[in-house]
Amino acid sequence: MPGLLLGDVFPDFEADSTVGRISLHAFLGNSWGILFSHPRDYTPVCTTELGRAAKLSAEFSKRDVKMIALSLDSVEDHLGWSKLFQATNHKADILAYNNDSSCNALPFPIIADNKRELAVKLGMLDPDERDKDGMPLTARCVFVIGPDKRLKLSILYPATTGRNFDELLRVIDSLQLTAQKRVATPVDWKPGDNVMVVPNLSDDEAASLFPSGVTTKDLPSGKKYLRYTPQP
Amino acid sequence: MPGLLLGDVFPDFEADSTVGRISLHAFLGNSWGILFSHPRDYTPVCTTELGRAAKLSAEFSKRDVKMIALSLDSVEDHLGWSKLFQATNHKADILAYNNDSSCNALPFPIIADNKRELAVKLGMLDPDERDKDGMPLTARCVFVIGPDKRLKLSILYPATTGRNFDELLRVIDSLQLTAQKRVATPVDWKPGDNVMVVPNLSDDEAASLFPSGVTTKDLPSGKKYLRYTPQP
Repeated sequence: MPGLLLGDVFPDFEADSTVGRISLHAFLGNSWGILFSHPRDYTPVCTTELGRAAKLSAEFSKRDVKMIALSLDSVEDHLGWSKLFQATNHKADILAYNNDSSCNALPFPIIADNKRELAVKLGMLDPDERDKDGMPLTARCVFVIGPDKRLKLSILYPATTGRNFDELLRVIDSLQLTAQKRVATPVDWKPGDNVMVVPNLSDDEAASLFPSGVTTKDLPSGKKYLRYTPQP
Repeated sequence: MPGLLLGDVFPDFEADSTVGRISLHAFLGNSWGILFSHPRDYTPVCTTELGRAAKLSAEFSKRDVKMIALSLDSVEDHLGWSKLFQATNHKADILAYNNDSSCNALPFPIIADNKRELAVKLGMLDPDERDKDGMPLTARCVFVIGPDKRLKLSILYPATTGRNFDELLRVIDSLQLTAQKRVATPVDWKPGDNVMVVPNLSDDEAASLFPSGVTTKDLPSGKKYLRYTPQP
């Protein structure tokens, strides 16, 4: 029953993409990565999602996160849907949807998983969304992969529910912060909010690691675990 | 490699909980369900999350979504962390954290998965978070289950990243809307925003289904798939 678990090495693979044959681990190098699938090129929600992803690409770059998209469509369809046609200088649908003069090309590759190999292997298919031959399409999966190539976080939304890219940036900020500092981020945390000191740090260690101060909330149990500190 | 996929019947199980022995499918009845795991009772992020979940319970009820939490701790720990002590009329940690006089009991059960049976079966373990015996704890999983008992959406966050309950309500609104109407919700959609007409509806069908009007955005491909309508 369990699929890809947190902490598992994300499987390496080779695939065709809009930038040619690609090997995932080599593409990621020492960066973080976000692999996100969509159901189908030339469809409404996917266009809004990839448009938004393109607009946010500088935010992902700033965090050293390499973006890579995936669907079952061909490289030809991916390009027809997303590229700048140099000869006529016109932009394909996603870029036109964005209506942003600064963006002349999709700033990340799209994998063409025509044979459904990756979709099956990685549990990405959505049985409620099928192509004209009755074959299931890819759902809206997201895998966040660390520089150690291990899975850090995943989400699985159906075709009918567009993702929330602000939430994706929020969790990447949390993952990167908590990978470096001995803190965790509370419910609904946003960058800049206070964070929680992890339970396995003693009060003395916490005081020395977090010179901006640690505030402990009194609780009926008398246990001293609700410890906040400004984001380090 | 694939775990529980969208559309799979969510496995039924029996387990001990803060409201006694519980059977998942019977507990859910004909309602929607949200099953969410946390790493450990009496820890910081989990307290903020379950506190927030308790505060939002009316929002989940309004949507006919039954909430149920899960961790590896015992029923005794769950209760010690979350109940109202009737004899002394004092509230345990989660309720005290909320500091909300209207909330005298946790409004949802917590499952005690002491033997890790469900955590293993459902792929919930986080190898980076371990108890004092070196055993992995549960991650921050969420499973949204439809009235047909099938998996509609899932997320898997690590122990160090608290979830975003506004995002959970947002996706439930999207799931419920798109289960009833032939629309999908675009990237970053919020309730009340325009929605997209699904691709397999003809323009004529769309016009008759959505009397408030359908707006089609012109795209370079000439394809007419980017069709918006006010939320029905």
